[in-house]
Amino acid sequence: MERKYRIGVDLGGTNIKTGIIDEHCTLIVKKSAKTYPIGRPWQEVVNDIALLILDTLATINISLEQCEKIGIGSPGMVDHANGVIVFAGNFDWNNVPIAEELRKHINLPSQLSNDGNCAVIGEVVAGAAKGSKDVVMLTLGTGLGSGVISGGILQEGGSSGGMEIGHSLLMMDGEYCTCGRRGCFEAYASANALIRQARYMAIQHPNSLLASLCNGNPDEMRGEIPFSAARKGDAYAQIVVNDYIRFLGEGIINCINIWRPEKVLLGGGVSHAGDQLLVPLNQYVSPRVFAGNRGCTAPILQAVLGNDAGIIGAAVL
Amino acid sequence: MERKYRIGVDLGGTNIKTGIIDEHCTLIVKKSAKTYPIGRPWQEVVNDIALLILDTLATINISLEQCEKIGIGSPGMVDHANGVIVFAGNFDWNNVPIAEELRKHINLPSQLSNDGNCAVIGEVVAGAAKGSKDVVMLTLGTGLGSGVISGGILQEGGSSGGMEIGHSLLMMDGEYCTCGRRGCFEAYASANALIRQARYMAIQHPNSLLASLCNGNPDEMRGEIPFSAARKGDAYAQIVVNDYIRFLGEGIINCINIWRPEKVLLGGGVSHAGDQLLVPLNQYVSPRVFAGNRGCTAPILQAVLGNDAGIIGAAVL
Repeated sequence: MERKYRIGVDLGGTNIKTGIIDEHCTLIVKKSAKTYPIGRPWQEVVNDIALLILDTLATINISLEQCEKIGIGSPGMVDHANGVIVFAGNFDWNNVPIAEELRKHINLPSQLSNDGNCAVIGEVVAGAAKGSKDVVMLTLGTGLGSGVISGGILQEGGSSGGMEIGHSLLMMDGEYCTCGRRGCFEAYASANALIRQARYMAIQHPNSLLASLCNGNPDEMRGEIPFSAARKGDAYAQIVVNDYIRFLGEGIINCINIWRPEKVLLGGGVSHAGDQLLVPLNQYVSPRVFAGNRGCTAPILQAVLGNDAGIIGAAVL
Repeated sequence: MERKYRIGVDLGGTNIKTGIIDEHCTLIVKKSAKTYPIGRPWQEVVNDIALLILDTLATINISLEQCEKIGIGSPGMVDHANGVIVFAGNFDWNNVPIAEELRKHINLPSQLSNDGNCAVIGEVVAGAAKGSKDVVMLTLGTGLGSGVISGGILQEGGSSGGMEIGHSLLMMDGEYCTCGRRGCFEAYASANALIRQARYMAIQHPNSLLASLCNGNPDEMRGEIPFSAARKGDAYAQIVVNDYIRFLGEGIINCINIWRPEKVLLGGGVSHAGDQLLVPLNQYVSPRVFAGNRGCTAPILQAVLGNDAGIIGAAVL
């Protein structure tokens, strides 16, 4: 029987998502289950992954014998060569041999990579960067995830935990980052960083639209509020948005100066701001890349696959 | 006749250097000529390169028929696919088709790359990183040159002018950089940046050893003076050295978080400070890399080939 299907697993802090892609990298079915409760043995989570895979296959009457392999995208630091999750903060996992454990349940070859890597692969095989050989993708969520394809090759670095663009500097000695360092790109350009900046502005200006859109409680600030308030003319919200664009833009210039990609893709919650973010961001970045118009810049685009990118990317690992 | 030799050209702002390597990547002969005067037609410089190559071969009685190819390392922004120097500031060159022009003189295949790339290749084939597959090399000279080998593959980025690590940020809105941006790593960690920092300290403290070692004239500051004065106990010089180590260290942490190399190599004038630089630098960097001791850090070492790295690296392009 021809093994023409592949299985993708996107392991997240909240949900496990599984999907099947066909030989055209089209996601033909997907399913989801809760990862919770956090803190239970990792063997149980792997068992749930296996059950969800079998369940997903059953939905469309595909057998394991028709599948070529399983790919897993995981948050945290991953040893891709050995299929081990070295460290995943959300699960409090250390050195989990997930690929080996999954094979005890489902006897198919499996690959493991970081979820940021899977997202960029997904967008390259089936999304906003289809066919591109040089792409940088940044996922603007709780943290700032990243994935780089250079010369058609996924860049993972020489050992576990490479391509941590979010943990390269924007501002030495600046804001504290979750990684323990100060001034990381993530500490200025993640959704959480945007929320921190907007919350601070709302506290300083309690009569602003920015403040009223979070019901007068700055602790209820969300990433879309500064964009929404700025659209409605709130000057304070516009300052927050402008600063955020400068922070994000400077980090993107770093990426362009290093990888000279064809495209820079933005995913994650903040990317849903669309043109309100992308138009000024492209205007900021383009004239500032190294060697200006002698080199080439890269358009900054919104990713299109959303959460499916991670499943598809894992499946094609 | 077996073509077992390769020709390397290191094109610099002051000197053209040529060398021949054998099949073991050993540099068996080298020669040098002045690049000056700056401003003459690039065709003349290429003519000089060709003559110097023939001269170098003649020294050891090797014929062009015994040579496989020519590699050229050039400063500035390079289009390696087409053998064109897109832009080289020191020469004021734009779009110079150096590979094609050189073939008019010497009919051998030729490759072009950035000089930072050639240096890291040289150290990997014959120097401090012999046999390593994942190496980042920083050259601390007038500017801050860089070269990256990842997974055994030279990283050049998707188009001209990639891997400009010196032009990624250390401090947003910080010191002005020659590239027009503010806060670049180069503006804090090049030899010129060290000299600026030391000069400023000498002006503020005219009675310090730091000031007296440049004959009381801070404009005569050189990169080795703060190290020399610090060795002799000058507290002001030690502050300059400590700050420089922090700047350089933070940029190196960025590199480790991204490429997770086996080794980080330092070349260029400042690297000659040796252990006085390397010991505290390794102590600074090691505990600060992403995920700490869960991942792996990389030892920071002095490059060993000096100027020969660029010639050897060009020859094996």
